[in-house]
Amino acid sequence: MSNFELLNSDHLARRGIVKTVHGNINTPAFMPVGTAATVKAVTTPDLLKTGSEILLGNTYHLMLRPGDDLISKFGGLHDFMNWHLPILTDSGGYQVFSLSKLRKLSDNGVEFKSHIDGKKFLVTPEKSIEIQKNLNSDIVMCFDECTPFPATHDQASDSMRLSMKWAERCKYAFTGSQNQLFGIVQGSTYSDLRDESVRSLINLDFDGYAVGGLAVGEPQDEMFKVLDYTCPLLPQNRPRYLMGVGKPDDIIGAVARGIDMFDCVLPTRSGRNGQAFTKNGTINIRNSKFKQLNSSIDPESDNPVCNTYSAAYLHHLFNAKEMLGGMLLSLHNIYFYQNLMKEIRASIEEKRFQRFSEEFLSNYN
Amino acid sequence: MSNFELLNSDHLARRGIVKTVHGNINTPAFMPVGTAATVKAVTTPDLLKTGSEILLGNTYHLMLRPGDDLISKFGGLHDFMNWHLPILTDSGGYQVFSLSKLRKLSDNGVEFKSHIDGKKFLVTPEKSIEIQKNLNSDIVMCFDECTPFPATHDQASDSMRLSMKWAERCKYAFTGSQNQLFGIVQGSTYSDLRDESVRSLINLDFDGYAVGGLAVGEPQDEMFKVLDYTCPLLPQNRPRYLMGVGKPDDIIGAVARGIDMFDCVLPTRSGRNGQAFTKNGTINIRNSKFKQLNSSIDPESDNPVCNTYSAAYLHHLFNAKEMLGGMLLSLHNIYFYQNLMKEIRASIEEKRFQRFSEEFLSNYN
Repeated sequence: MSNFELLNSDHLARRGIVKTVHGNINTPAFMPVGTAATVKAVTTPDLLKTGSEILLGNTYHLMLRPGDDLISKFGGLHDFMNWHLPILTDSGGYQVFSLSKLRKLSDNGVEFKSHIDGKKFLVTPEKSIEIQKNLNSDIVMCFDECTPFPATHDQASDSMRLSMKWAERCKYAFTGSQNQLFGIVQGSTYSDLRDESVRSLINLDFDGYAVGGLAVGEPQDEMFKVLDYTCPLLPQNRPRYLMGVGKPDDIIGAVARGIDMFDCVLPTRSGRNGQAFTKNGTINIRNSKFKQLNSSIDPESDNPVCNTYSAAYLHHLFNAKEMLGGMLLSLHNIYFYQNLMKEIRASIEEKRFQRFSEEFLSNYN
Repeated sequence: MSNFELLNSDHLARRGIVKTVHGNINTPAFMPVGTAATVKAVTTPDLLKTGSEILLGNTYHLMLRPGDDLISKFGGLHDFMNWHLPILTDSGGYQVFSLSKLRKLSDNGVEFKSHIDGKKFLVTPEKSIEIQKNLNSDIVMCFDECTPFPATHDQASDSMRLSMKWAERCKYAFTGSQNQLFGIVQGSTYSDLRDESVRSLINLDFDGYAVGGLAVGEPQDEMFKVLDYTCPLLPQNRPRYLMGVGKPDDIIGAVARGIDMFDCVLPTRSGRNGQAFTKNGTINIRNSKFKQLNSSIDPESDNPVCNTYSAAYLHHLFNAKEMLGGMLLSLHNIYFYQNLMKEIRASIEEKRFQRFSEEFLSNYN
């Protein structure tokens, strides 16, 4: 039985359902990031109400603290953090490269020192899969090297081929699991390398395909160009995931090119910093123009946070450094993202995605 | 019509109902503290679920930030912070003395500089009442001087008599309000002064009587002694409020002596610092003994936080400095306090308060 049902499409935009052991995910879907077994400053009951159907957990953080063996003993990440819908975990690769100290890369894997206490670890493709199995992740990601941007063709080629070898080892290590394993397309901004990477992965037959090596500092049009030539190479009957993306306009542009799944820290990180997403773009709630504003931060948006609290109250909370400020804006921003995804899904179903996206973007930018 | 209905009593312990414009409060009652228009790290919908029926707001903080005039324009503190049950506000007196810089006390009132920006303010009894009216507080407290501990008989006498003069001015300034005004008994640890203070206040006829000048560093037995001779002087048909108290054993001892209402920052402040209240006393969740504990922090307690999350998960959140840790423990601690109050109320109704308190204290200490 397929793990992905394609319900509708509107040009390249797709409306589907990803099926997992812990339930279905309506796509296009946005996954809030729960790095250390918590979506920062948001309780799981509140998160459920936002319409979130899947969370992302970070393998690197969880293996270091509290440790995947402990989480495994507790019945997996779902029980540990009280989230009983699907969870996707990244492979840890990205954080090994961006956060840890003294990395040593070999064909076998990566040796590194923890950014928390300097303790030494070796992560191989097999180890990454073992950790993600311990977490009981519904969607496991292959361990890969996220090619930095920019990269020469040679660098990108070597890096991609290493990731493809590791993908094969991940696939083998994953054998027998009831959960799903996604392959990650690499190849930087080179269409021949993306093509080679996709063919390698399809040959191994993954449950879904992520486009990796993007959202690493490249301009938006560069990212869209990569999607323009990569997405058509991917099988129609599998979900497609754009890792680490992004801003609302990034998401809309990627959906238009055939992407189904997204994750990003932006709604929660911005929320803690006093930035709120609105239909007219982002606002900084600390701005003194909100001090006396006895109305919603966004009368166009509709959610229990901005429907309940005035801009002035939220401004006051940040001004007084009250934790509730970050809690409420994080929640508001997740609602904003999930409502955007709902509207995207409805517009695809009704074959009016392009009109929806033009209207959204003309207000937003 | 009386604002207080005495339903039951068990020796000196009282079970009653305080009636306000925003609803009834079952007593003995505990009021979580919402200093700056938020109970720190707890949303109002979550707070409602704990069984809290009244919150305390701090006049001093709110007058400085965001300003009581702004809150008044927004329809009062209830609407501003989305809490539609009763609110009691203190008079600002205590914080003027403990937080502000360069105070100048006169018979007229107190001139002080804000601890936030050094701006100058003058608070008089009339001004304190005006601010609390702007907040639309259901229960307004008289502006008083909280006599420091220890104080000589002369100091305590002068201070108490100033507060009694101010109480009269507060009563006059409050005329015509539909809300309630509580007088505050002062007199430090001197029974003759407490007696004089109570008689002055009763003469003015307040809606309720607070015992002030306690919870300022005196030993528990000293506090209980003051209650022993003060409570019998207070009218039976009015609620009695012990300000700023306290730990569970303080509350039980004060209920035994006839107190009806309490407020304290302890459950939320402790919660943010990783301290959890349990039936066996407080625990520090950061202690490494909780690292692997796959069970509740307190199997004896019953609330959605400790019933849902393992000790190990809460330990992990604090270890990883995640906001959710402080959020969940604050909420747990408020549940603990409200469940304690529920048990106290039930035990008074069933004339078994003494047995309940002995059992509670023998486990707790």
